[in-house]
Amino acid sequence: MKSHQIHLASRPTGMPTQENFKSVEVELPALKEGEVLIQNTWMSVDPYMRGRMIVSDSYIPPFELNEVMEGGAIGEVIESKNDQFPVGSKVSNISGWRTTFISDGGDLALLPAVGVPEQHFLGVIGMPGLTAWVGLFNVAKLKPTDTVFVSAASGAVGSVAVQIAKLHGCKVIGSVGSDEKAEAVKAMGADAVINYKKVENLTDALREAAPEGIDVYFENVGGDHLEAALNVLNPYGRIPVCGMIADYNAETPQPGPNNLLLINTKKLTVQGYIVMDYWDQYGEFVEQMGQWITEGKVTSEETVYNGLDNAAEAFIGLFEGKNKGKMLVKI
Amino acid sequence: MKSHQIHLASRPTGMPTQENFKSVEVELPALKEGEVLIQNTWMSVDPYMRGRMIVSDSYIPPFELNEVMEGGAIGEVIESKNDQFPVGSKVSNISGWRTTFISDGGDLALLPAVGVPEQHFLGVIGMPGLTAWVGLFNVAKLKPTDTVFVSAASGAVGSVAVQIAKLHGCKVIGSVGSDEKAEAVKAMGADAVINYKKVENLTDALREAAPEGIDVYFENVGGDHLEAALNVLNPYGRIPVCGMIADYNAETPQPGPNNLLLINTKKLTVQGYIVMDYWDQYGEFVEQMGQWITEGKVTSEETVYNGLDNAAEAFIGLFEGKNKGKMLVKI
Repeated sequence: MKSHQIHLASRPTGMPTQENFKSVEVELPALKEGEVLIQNTWMSVDPYMRGRMIVSDSYIPPFELNEVMEGGAIGEVIESKNDQFPVGSKVSNISGWRTTFISDGGDLALLPAVGVPEQHFLGVIGMPGLTAWVGLFNVAKLKPTDTVFVSAASGAVGSVAVQIAKLHGCKVIGSVGSDEKAEAVKAMGADAVINYKKVENLTDALREAAPEGIDVYFENVGGDHLEAALNVLNPYGRIPVCGMIADYNAETPQPGPNNLLLINTKKLTVQGYIVMDYWDQYGEFVEQMGQWITEGKVTSEETVYNGLDNAAEAFIGLFEGKNKGKMLVKI
Repeated sequence: MKSHQIHLASRPTGMPTQENFKSVEVELPALKEGEVLIQNTWMSVDPYMRGRMIVSDSYIPPFELNEVMEGGAIGEVIESKNDQFPVGSKVSNISGWRTTFISDGGDLALLPAVGVPEQHFLGVIGMPGLTAWVGLFNVAKLKPTDTVFVSAASGAVGSVAVQIAKLHGCKVIGSVGSDEKAEAVKAMGADAVINYKKVENLTDALREAAPEGIDVYFENVGGDHLEAALNVLNPYGRIPVCGMIADYNAETPQPGPNNLLLINTKKLTVQGYIVMDYWDQYGEFVEQMGQWITEGKVTSEETVYNGLDNAAEAFIGLFEGKNKGKMLVKI
């Protein structure tokens, strides 16, 4: 059995390019007792993977050069010597960027039976969805009376944050980089959406959308978005820091906003977090989110690239704003 | 009875100058029933007052132009028509920047009888001391195993933060702007002190002082100090933001550090706070601090300017690093 894999060919500086990736075929050995063979059907590309392409002081180790990359994927067991995972089982796994792989089951989870399309477990009801959930509830301690500003509001995490905050009773303002995405985010229920590429001054636009000020800024972007949010946040505002995508590909680190003193004068809380620390909430989250999806209260937008050899293009597309909602690769 | 007062003559841009202040004498009316006449003996100058000299979106209203300024002071009741405050009572008040004033008692507090010099109630056992206390315990949730970095470590708040953290069992690193201050902070028990004016790279100096990383950064300064702290903080590190004195007099707001993404990757919590929100802890604080002072476990350094007409010079001196410990004016 052959496995088609994408390896890290070189570490990017600035925006990743096709040259950083290479397509490789490897031969898999025969299954041993306790092992299963998985055929991946979907894989996820996520902005955080950019951090793993370089050597840094981050929360997860970097990808190895000339080794297969990793990431969330959904697959089907096609051969099994493990009773827990019979042939035909649908599993989520962290062995993306490859068509097939062998596992002893330790890194597999059977998909919960909540009646949603399997690829949703890479998005709205998977890691990105849980990231939005814990950012709002655990980190920002969301209250129904809050006005919430979500940057990258049409992205995998942002689009879920918008919808969860609306379901919680909040007023929600999103920011996006195109009118098309603005329409999509409005359709998800956002009270106002700012196309940041079209406004002269993001602070003014945000003030106009939220004359009462914002209470929570769901931080996906950094830079000018953080600056505007600090300006418009109300006293005791909270900033769950999910990511700062503006910084991921900067060849020279960009200076931060010049108004950080507002953290003091407005008594703000800025808190970085990482979803791995909150996996104990996945059960509760899946139950609630599964219900919301089947009731039509949460919708899931997906942008799909076909074929493993287009995975690098899909990944690079994340930083070019090519995805609406969750960016996926169908294998 | 005349009151000698310092009024705000104009609002500063950049560093305050003598021209922003003017010395005024006003005649006080006769006491009404329930009122007392206070003679101030000590007044405090604090960095936060810079924020009140301009019109901004801060937590306290700005000083009025051509009106007397305000601030913490200690005084003695010299005439009384209020049984709660008989003649001779020592009181803390917020009517600094003047020699005498009339009060109905609502803004006065009798000095607690803990046997320390009265001017300490403007410093180590007053607002600056409580600011250090709540920043470490309430905001940063200090643990004895933490390594703590305190900027402006010889200042009124910083010097208390250093000593409290040591008493709690922590390893403490301070930063100061002169060798003389470094000696003073070492004498307070700091494990290492960095003279930031003498090091080429603050991050390197901090890493050398804390090869194990820091867990808490007590933020008084901003700018390069925040950048270095972010670099050296351990995962789940905490930054209580007491102030950012580097920004107070900037004529053009300075960009923030270029490594804010570390808030996310290290899962840091950056939390602004203001001591007014924690006055309910003052009783517990005074009891503990009074004991520490009388036992010689906490020392208090004070820099004293004599005479109300030198108050502006004392205040400006805060931003020129002229104080060791608490900057006071003896009236």
